[in-house]
Amino acid sequence: MKNITFIGSGNVATILSMELHRNGYNILEIWSKTEKSAKILADKLSCSYCVDLKKLKNPDLFIVAIKDEHIKDIVNLIQNKETPIVHTSGSVGIDVFTNKNNYGVFYPLQTFSKEVSLNFNNLPVCIEANNELTQKDLIKIGNSLSSNIHLVDSKQREKLHIAAVISCNFTNHMLTISENLMKESELEFNLLKPLIKETLEKALANSPNKVQTGPAARKDLEIVKKHINLLSYDDNLKKLYSLISRHIISFKSCE
Amino acid sequence: MKNITFIGSGNVATILSMELHRNGYNILEIWSKTEKSAKILADKLSCSYCVDLKKLKNPDLFIVAIKDEHIKDIVNLIQNKETPIVHTSGSVGIDVFTNKNNYGVFYPLQTFSKEVSLNFNNLPVCIEANNELTQKDLIKIGNSLSSNIHLVDSKQREKLHIAAVISCNFTNHMLTISENLMKESELEFNLLKPLIKETLEKALANSPNKVQTGPAARKDLEIVKKHINLLSYDDNLKKLYSLISRHIISFKSCE
Repeated sequence: MKNITFIGSGNVATILSMELHRNGYNILEIWSKTEKSAKILADKLSCSYCVDLKKLKNPDLFIVAIKDEHIKDIVNLIQNKETPIVHTSGSVGIDVFTNKNNYGVFYPLQTFSKEVSLNFNNLPVCIEANNELTQKDLIKIGNSLSSNIHLVDSKQREKLHIAAVISCNFTNHMLTISENLMKESELEFNLLKPLIKETLEKALANSPNKVQTGPAARKDLEIVKKHINLLSYDDNLKKLYSLISRHIISFKSCE
Repeated sequence: MKNITFIGSGNVATILSMELHRNGYNILEIWSKTEKSAKILADKLSCSYCVDLKKLKNPDLFIVAIKDEHIKDIVNLIQNKETPIVHTSGSVGIDVFTNKNNYGVFYPLQTFSKEVSLNFNNLPVCIEANNELTQKDLIKIGNSLSSNIHLVDSKQREKLHIAAVISCNFTNHMLTISENLMKESELEFNLLKPLIKETLEKALANSPNKVQTGPAARKDLEIVKKHINLLSYDDNLKKLYSLISRHIISFKSCE
């Protein structure tokens, strides 16, 4: 699989195509629905670009790196049934390729932005394929980028995506809420950063469950109630505080 | 304030007394309700210890570093009304000292464990006092340990404590939940760590609100619903996922 065509020209397509290019792969062509964006990436890679899915060249592999909700429609418009084709999404199943013969998923588990360069060395890449030959080829490509390749099927990837949402998006929201609470009290969010860093370093060095602390974890219901009362001016936040505290308490009770 | 007596011999008392000792303060005495634990810390500091609150020597400052729920009772048993006295708690108000004349709070905002040495240089210390002289003395002690001293009154500290619970304990719980989801799918939690690290570094380098991503933040209700359905085998987790997602959506709608 030497010649790769990218369907898409966004963050993932840009970072991934350039990294493959750096590692000796030939990027054959960039497709994007807008010519401008296809050209920008194609220029970086010194390759051709295309906006008409019917006029795609024949590569050794198609990598579809576009928004989740468009994958199905775009894949159906690609007429070539034999050339291996993969998408890079954490939340779309492998069954989106049912009208193709060789297909899979090549899902790099990281946030991508065009501007920030990424260290691929230890980047986890989750691979799935509908047959052994395609799987072998995808693993080979994965190994050329990273030493952290995992076989993850669509059912596992669904759960993995939920776990990523909870451990990344939800934790970020917890930080947003506390940043807001600090502002309300005219305190700098900076004040909390050393404590947050220490807590998260500890959680990632151990098992987070083993280092859980705080009023709910030690079942100090007086403090939990006091906090809920103090938050009564914001009904949604009060509910959130109460539900997460109860969830921590029930977790600790099951141990 | 050269001579300091510690009421307590737990994690905070141990770390803080040893750091003050290192910085030239004389630890006069350690009080603990158990002789063994008082002696262990007193030996480290080459000072005397005591288990009878009526027999305390007269220091320049009492630092009460014991469990939150015992502060009130212990403070009431200390007969000396004039010597400045502070506690180190984030969640107990300054009004716990109403029977004293000079009092305050000296709250180092970090998790303490006896075993792990702590860098005090940039450790935030929150200070409050009932009069200017005591406040000045506490700031002086604070400055001798850290360059990150803040005046924080009891009302602010209440909110600060809630913010700390949400940004540390709740984020840790989010990691625990995702660790469990990974286990359920026979996936290693390690797979998620690079993504978690990247997300949190971004949040702490910027404002977390500005870097919020994920299905709820981009109002991708199909994915949110899909995840809620996938979690229907665990009613509590389903509720939690749904409530936090709604909270993120309402936050994004208010911007």
